Amino acid sequence: MATPTRIGLAGLAVMGQNLALNIAEKGFPMSVYNRSTSKVDETVERAKKEGNLPLYGFHDPESFVLSIQKPRVIIILVKAGLPVDQTIKTLSAYMEKGDCIIDGGNEWYENTERREKEMAELGLLYLGMGVSGGEEGARNGPSMMPGGSFEAYKYIEDILLKVAAQVPDSGPCVTYIGKGGSGNFVKMVHNGIEYGDMQLIAEAYDVLRSVGKLSNDELHQVFLEWNKGELLSFLIEITADIFGIKDDKGDGYLVDKVLDKTGMKGTGKWTVQQAAELSVAAPTIAASLDSRFLSGLKDERVQAAKVFESSGVSDILVEQSVDKNQLIEDVRKALYASKICSYAQGMNLIRAKSVEKGWDLKLGELARIWKGGCIIRAIFLDRIKGAYDRNPDLANLLVDEEFAKEMVERQSAWRRVVCLAINSGISTPGMSSSLAYFDSYRRESLPANLVQAQRDYFGAHTYERIDVPGAFHTEWFKIAKQSKN
Amino acid sequence: MATPTRIGLAGLAVMGQNLALNIAEKGFPMSVYNRSTSKVDETVERAKKEGNLPLYGFHDPESFVLSIQKPRVIIILVKAGLPVDQTIKTLSAYMEKGDCIIDGGNEWYENTERREKEMAELGLLYLGMGVSGGEEGARNGPSMMPGGSFEAYKYIEDILLKVAAQVPDSGPCVTYIGKGGSGNFVKMVHNGIEYGDMQLIAEAYDVLRSVGKLSNDELHQVFLEWNKGELLSFLIEITADIFGIKDDKGDGYLVDKVLDKTGMKGTGKWTVQQAAELSVAAPTIAASLDSRFLSGLKDERVQAAKVFESSGVSDILVEQSVDKNQLIEDVRKALYASKICSYAQGMNLIRAKSVEKGWDLKLGELARIWKGGCIIRAIFLDRIKGAYDRNPDLANLLVDEEFAKEMVERQSAWRRVVCLAINSGISTPGMSSSLAYFDSYRRESLPANLVQAQRDYFGAHTYERIDVPGAFHTEWFKIAKQSKN
Repeated sequence: MATPTRIGLAGLAVMGQNLALNIAEKGFPMSVYNRSTSKVDETVERAKKEGNLPLYGFHDPESFVLSIQKPRVIIILVKAGLPVDQTIKTLSAYMEKGDCIIDGGNEWYENTERREKEMAELGLLYLGMGVSGGEEGARNGPSMMPGGSFEAYKYIEDILLKVAAQVPDSGPCVTYIGKGGSGNFVKMVHNGIEYGDMQLIAEAYDVLRSVGKLSNDELHQVFLEWNKGELLSFLIEITADIFGIKDDKGDGYLVDKVLDKTGMKGTGKWTVQQAAELSVAAPTIAASLDSRFLSGLKDERVQAAKVFESSGVSDILVEQSVDKNQLIEDVRKALYASKICSYAQGMNLIRAKSVEKGWDLKLGELARIWKGGCIIRAIFLDRIKGAYDRNPDLANLLVDEEFAKEMVERQSAWRRVVCLAINSGISTPGMSSSLAYFDSYRRESLPANLVQAQRDYFGAHTYERIDVPGAFHTEWFKIAKQSKN
Repeated sequence: MATPTRIGLAGLAVMGQNLALNIAEKGFPMSVYNRSTSKVDETVERAKKEGNLPLYGFHDPESFVLSIQKPRVIIILVKAGLPVDQTIKTLSAYMEKGDCIIDGGNEWYENTERREKEMAELGLLYLGMGVSGGEEGARNGPSMMPGGSFEAYKYIEDILLKVAAQVPDSGPCVTYIGKGGSGNFVKMVHNGIEYGDMQLIAEAYDVLRSVGKLSNDELHQVFLEWNKGELLSFLIEITADIFGIKDDKGDGYLVDKVLDKTGMKGTGKWTVQQAAELSVAAPTIAASLDSRFLSGLKDERVQAAKVFESSGVSDILVEQSVDKNQLIEDVRKALYASKICSYAQGMNLIRAKSVEKGWDLKLGELARIWKGGCIIRAIFLDRIKGAYDRNPDLANLLVDEEFAKEMVERQSAWRRVVCLAINSGISTPGMSSSLAYFDSYRRESLPANLVQAQRDYFGAHTYERIDVPGAFHTEWFKIAKQSKN
């Protein structure tokens, strides 16, 4: 290596290794470093094998940092939290004014904001960049959500534009998100939406399998078919794949052998907590998180099933006779309508945070960069972009004219599916909370008047009236007592 | 005042004033203090009027503190957060080793734990004590949840036992909750459960009014009737009262003039965030919080209603012909069954925290002290206490033999109500998420196998199998690709 490299990457686990190879492949000479040196050698080896990519490995942090051209840019991909702080400490010791660190992990946005300030005191720039797409995306084109120093973003914009997933008609899946921790925050909500999508697909599967009695073969075909229409997306595609895969350890299909216990990382939890913090209703995303929690209680569920079965309440309450084709169509519509509600919640959560922090985020642009590379990539995001193009201040995706029309067309099927599930004893928490969200949001008068009256009754919290402005308090107890006497 | 008083109370807003009068009335000589002195005089005045109660007012903190017998115990009732810290600072300046401060507000439990440590450094004891019951409860008998120093609790146990609400057969509504911030935490979940109860009652009201076309008069009678049976509770009682009250500003009933926008304080939000933090599914409580958020978007809802009405989707989709008496019975059962789910969530949240913090909380004992004084007081809590008496390690209230039996008896009615609401376009987010919780919890095999397969497909997160122990990873993409070729 005669001349300095263009960029460095530290942290060579799955994501880091693949992103480094991706960058090198795009023609940007790369320095890589990892604390345990075997990963460095492994990455260098892969770079050779995958086409003699311009990637150079370093076993110590100093020579790694010094190998990069100034102003230096180093992407770090290590575990969120303390490891990020430690890596920053190690590397920044050798960095100079104007150099930049980019954290590509799923970091809590406030950590990024703290670090950006600490780095600024050293004269260094900082970006928190959400990267979605898993191993495959990192290697061949992820969706990237960089937030923080705009100056730092400009240093590497040329790299990011080439490294990102490329989508015909909508361009590379990266954009400068905004200031501070906005890149991490947007990635966090992206993951919350991903939880929602996965849960809704699981419910569609459950209704089709448990009520509609579809075989894995039929499910495979249904999802293949769905992936040709409005549901076209990465998650529908891989779901179709999954139903086609036989178990190599025995008879039948692999999906039936997978234990129904779902793991999770922290981003779904954070999304739900932030929604509560910002007073944004996000019931579909919350339902998907709760479903993961309940899935984890396998032993308790096995016990509970026994308790209720002994009272005659079986897994499937009553076998419903259904028209398979009608059911498949209904479930497809229910899934799509539920998905709109889930995205409406996620987008409104992002907007609420943007307002709170003054980030000035562009929701339509987020839909654009999610169109490729990331786990929630879907043709449906075009419609979301379109909705925000038509009206950047749209209060809720549900009232966009196109989405409203789609909801109206699908609502009967949606109600049929949820009621069918309820009468079969099959839970569809995501679909039913989406439906409740829809029916609450489109309702001029909710029964919250009673709740507010109760609050004024026992806590003198006051209430507003529908006819006169002002705050009112009534001595409900006294009046009720009088009328009783 | 010749001799020192037994106890002091600082912070004489509604709750403080009434609790002070309650304590004095039980025969404990009381010192009171407030930063703005008019409240002190007002309280002294009330103490005279309400029977020459032994209550003494002080206009400065020093003479207030010095007026109390040693070891001094001072209850503070000021706004949570900074005002508590400020009040502690003011008072502790005059306090001596072994004295004690009790925070009676709705404080975040971690603040209490921080303060307990800070106080310990000064040789002072500390309690965080949740107090429920509003103004009326504070004056005549609240439910109290003291947590922190057991030594401090013992100082004032005799006072608390007399001041608390007294319930025949189950005793005074107070007990030592546990160490640290456990008293605040339990009060927080109590409030979360209260949110759930209020939302479920509001949904029952909505279905009866909007689908069943019950008048306020009829609703008044229905809730009076319900309050004689298994739903007997403070909230059902005040709901009956509310439906009986005419508008003094015009025609008709006051409840119809109350704007459907619900306010809130922080405890419901904290409950939902803690549930997510502790991996406990609490969908009913979350749905009640979300409903408050959506109720707040009145203007957006009015707009959305217009958008959808113009497409023929009205508030009530289709008028359903229902048998009123059958509907009332069904709704009663749905409300009760939903309530069980909500309490199951709250109790499991408390247990999860207790395990995390080593608090060793007694769930049955909590049900006992909620039986009187507090907002969620209800005859139903006897059944909860009974369930934990039968089995303190009960995994979930739903599988207690008595509750399981009750769920089985009510489930058909519950499913009818939720489906009726869905087909009418009326949202019942609390009831439907309770139902989904029930159907998920009692299900041996959830569709989480698909979610876990998806996670392994795109993120190599591995999965377990139903037949062989261990963690497995499959190259789903490769296999699917091969089979396509």
